[in-house]
Amino acid sequence: MGQEFHHYSVPMGRWEPNARERLVIAAVDLFSEQGYDETTVAQIADRAGVTKSTFFRHFPDKRELLVAGQATLSRLFADGILSAPAEAGPLEAVAAGLTRASEALGPVNHELGPRLEAVIASSTELQERSILKSVGLATAMSEALITRGVPNPVARLAGEMGVLAFHQGFVTWSNRPDGDGRALARLTVAALDELRTAAASLT
Amino acid sequence: MGQEFHHYSVPMGRWEPNARERLVIAAVDLFSEQGYDETTVAQIADRAGVTKSTFFRHFPDKRELLVAGQATLSRLFADGILSAPAEAGPLEAVAAGLTRASEALGPVNHELGPRLEAVIASSTELQERSILKSVGLATAMSEALITRGVPNPVARLAGEMGVLAFHQGFVTWSNRPDGDGRALARLTVAALDELRTAAASLT
Repeated sequence: MGQEFHHYSVPMGRWEPNARERLVIAAVDLFSEQGYDETTVAQIADRAGVTKSTFFRHFPDKRELLVAGQATLSRLFADGILSAPAEAGPLEAVAAGLTRASEALGPVNHELGPRLEAVIASSTELQERSILKSVGLATAMSEALITRGVPNPVARLAGEMGVLAFHQGFVTWSNRPDGDGRALARLTVAALDELRTAAASLT
Repeated sequence: MGQEFHHYSVPMGRWEPNARERLVIAAVDLFSEQGYDETTVAQIADRAGVTKSTFFRHFPDKRELLVAGQATLSRLFADGILSAPAEAGPLEAVAAGLTRASEALGPVNHELGPRLEAVIASSTELQERSILKSVGLATAMSEALITRGVPNPVARLAGEMGVLAFHQGFVTWSNRPDGDGRALARLTVAALDELRTAAASLT
């Protein structure tokens, strides 16, 4: 089975702590090769070199696997927003959240991103799950802003802008050769600035 | 079976053109009485006094029934936005869309609204579907704005603001005794004004 790891091939022992990441990579490979509907949890576990019960310790089903980063991203956005200086305005705090999350991403996300997008685009079920992920991320940002004392409608709007900026920045980043988190941070913050200008044109 | 119509009891013939509305009312009644998971399509059809095949002519499944208004609301939002005067700014156009959609709603929606919300709050599956509905409505507004020549980030943001305003206005309306569409229009446009102020505070 180790033969199937091709470019991710590394001795088992060393991989063990990364079962979660390996499962995501194996799933994206299989979904790309043979389609989402045609791929089973057993096949994903097999390709990743783990048992089905290991799969289920990490994910409830194959759909959740494709939005694996939601909880982590939500936490990073919130951490960045909450640790922004007290005098930072709502969008400055959102920029801090975008920076915190972006810098946690790296070459693996950069390489998986466009393939993940292609898989998601192939399935209505996954598109729906992906939309729910975005809404969840916006809520995480809005709630962190509310914790900072930002009033509700402002926090809601700033959270929506944060997610739009993250997506815009991520798409630009995905299409570039460089997979560095700092580059992603610059792109997401630039997208947020563009949205700030858009908001100004509405008022 | 006619006995089961209680407060909606009206002779069959007269109801026939409104099978769709009757199905929605019957479903909300049953979901409220016995729970969403426990209610079958057969029971809903039975309560509405139609066959299962009539149900499936209107809805693919019971989940879709609870977001029945999405296509109609999307169309009304878009119609209102597209028929706003050429010189109207993006948020003026969104206000026209909110007004068009609000005025198409009336006492049935006013009465069903809070019960529908309670049913949706009881089920993760329905909450997810409801979120997808909101995102769909925002996209409908954004696309209508893009058709008017509004640039993309501005259109996206204005569409999000339109949906936030519609929800806010609808919740306020639901808690009032008056179920008039004109009252809903005033509340949604007032909520949009509040969001415009929120946006100004971000820039």
